[in-house]
Amino acid sequence: MRESNTAEPGRRKAKGRSTEECWGGVDLGGTKIEAVVVDRAGSVLGKMRHPTPSDGEPGDVVRAVHETLEEAARAAGTTPRQLLGVGVGAPGAVNANEGTLGHVSNVGRGWSTPYPVAGDLSARAGCPVVLGNDVQVAVAAEYRLGAGRPYRSLLGVWWGTGVGGGLVLDGVPWRGRGAAGEVGHMVVKLGGARCGCGRRGCLEAYAGRASMERRAHKAVRRGEKTDLFDLMRKKGRSRLTSSIWARALAQEDALATWLIDRAVRMLGAGLASAINLLDVEAVVLGGGLGTRLGPEYASRIHEAMRPHIFVPERQPPVCVAELGELSGAIGAALLAQPPMK
Amino acid sequence: MRESNTAEPGRRKAKGRSTEECWGGVDLGGTKIEAVVVDRAGSVLGKMRHPTPSDGEPGDVVRAVHETLEEAARAAGTTPRQLLGVGVGAPGAVNANEGTLGHVSNVGRGWSTPYPVAGDLSARAGCPVVLGNDVQVAVAAEYRLGAGRPYRSLLGVWWGTGVGGGLVLDGVPWRGRGAAGEVGHMVVKLGGARCGCGRRGCLEAYAGRASMERRAHKAVRRGEKTDLFDLMRKKGRSRLTSSIWARALAQEDALATWLIDRAVRMLGAGLASAINLLDVEAVVLGGGLGTRLGPEYASRIHEAMRPHIFVPERQPPVCVAELGELSGAIGAALLAQPPMK
Repeated sequence: MRESNTAEPGRRKAKGRSTEECWGGVDLGGTKIEAVVVDRAGSVLGKMRHPTPSDGEPGDVVRAVHETLEEAARAAGTTPRQLLGVGVGAPGAVNANEGTLGHVSNVGRGWSTPYPVAGDLSARAGCPVVLGNDVQVAVAAEYRLGAGRPYRSLLGVWWGTGVGGGLVLDGVPWRGRGAAGEVGHMVVKLGGARCGCGRRGCLEAYAGRASMERRAHKAVRRGEKTDLFDLMRKKGRSRLTSSIWARALAQEDALATWLIDRAVRMLGAGLASAINLLDVEAVVLGGGLGTRLGPEYASRIHEAMRPHIFVPERQPPVCVAELGELSGAIGAALLAQPPMK
Repeated sequence: MRESNTAEPGRRKAKGRSTEECWGGVDLGGTKIEAVVVDRAGSVLGKMRHPTPSDGEPGDVVRAVHETLEEAARAAGTTPRQLLGVGVGAPGAVNANEGTLGHVSNVGRGWSTPYPVAGDLSARAGCPVVLGNDVQVAVAAEYRLGAGRPYRSLLGVWWGTGVGGGLVLDGVPWRGRGAAGEVGHMVVKLGGARCGCGRRGCLEAYAGRASMERRAHKAVRRGEKTDLFDLMRKKGRSRLTSSIWARALAQEDALATWLIDRAVRMLGAGLASAINLLDVEAVVLGGGLGTRLGPEYASRIHEAMRPHIFVPERQPPVCVAELGELSGAIGAALLAQPPMK
């Protein structure tokens, strides 16, 4: 494929081999850059992962993205220049029309002024680049290829460091004016706990991993006992990762159990509120904690939603995301494809 | 028009007078039945209002609906049989596909088993009948002809006895699986006040007129002072209507002020949550209290939303509904029309 495609688009079309039409997808995260090359059906033909340059300027981050993409393309037997398009899913303020990314707090050194990520990457890679919100594209991937396949409308909830979300309504991603899906900043308790966003009572203030970690530190300072931070040190980590939470739950650590139970209760209220407003068919649970804690906790969240659902006979299923760590990169690649049908 | 149309559809078409194509719309409420006849553009050609038979069986209610519709048609110079279709907006569990209405608590004697309202009315009126949710159709009318005209996506909030809602997303009413828009049953305070629906912490438990009236009774039993019930008796009412609340606020009644301030705070949290999830362009405020309290309170709700909006520079406007008491009936008529374009 590498040779035959170099400059013969006519021949590619004549042969009609859909595997020769490839798109790139990049999930740009705070710790890693995940790149894939997929075919029309979204099947992964090549992939690569690199760490995100931890103190890089925006330009350094884009260079690292390009290198990761190049290696994923090589693994797929192609080059970035031959891709029909590349999608990038990113956290922060995505301006899809302008291809800029601003208000990024945990990628590289972070930056607030919008940076032309799409233009810069497109110049390096030699193909069109589009930007999207990281969670929205991951949810779109689950809709088309993962746990959301049986449904026409769903709410995706990405339970990790924060609580992100994305919507698909009647088969189409709903982005509002660009910022839809912030399920983590629905108010579940007016005047309640302080959230990382500075507001009070948000779902994320109770269920986000970062919020729970802050709360655990506070409890330890108050003299409460927990194995959470011992587990962290034993694993050589500087943060309470999803696997540390899972381990502490398995050991029936009292503080971890209390915090996660509270998170589940708050997720129940917040997600039920979203269902009462939108009446979608299903909830897809992803993110670090969502996929790590898996079906048992999906089922517990389902039960926590039940008392708040307005039409009780229509309680939607809560399914665990199926595409795992690649959902963001695959979803980004789908964003670069022309719409189906 | 009455004579010329009787059995000459061909002639009507040949003349091409759009005013000759008429649709009926009925807003079926607990206290009154409001019927209109509109043209293609939604202009009201005739209208009529009757009280809802207070202890009627479902069939009695449909008979009263038919009579109201007949009089509205007569006022428009036509008959129900000549209407191209009739829409009925109703509270309760609407099954639009089957044309049935169940779980109705405050219309006639109320009934729980689904009753074929569309089939019964269609047989009486001699034209097709479709059913819709009362608030959803009112919001659709505001979108097309009222305060929502400048926008492609909006959240309508009907603040009255309860707190209902409806969504228009990218120009299309979003009904989910039929029950979308229950903004009043979003949880704003987990474990909070008891709602009329039996659950706890719902927005309606704080902001619904019925909930506020229950809370006011409780305060009086505890010895708190208020003019609310004196005003009610003076006006010869058995309920605290919107005008009584407005009067008590104007008199700076302490209890009324406290309850309405709390309702505004809770509406702020609930509506901001909805905006964070959906990122629509605007909120349209209708319903008895919403239209009675008007722009001043729309502005107060806007301010109460502000601290909870995740993208603060995108705080959507809160506009007061413009079609007044006819929005439900007009929206029901629009439901019977074929889609525009």
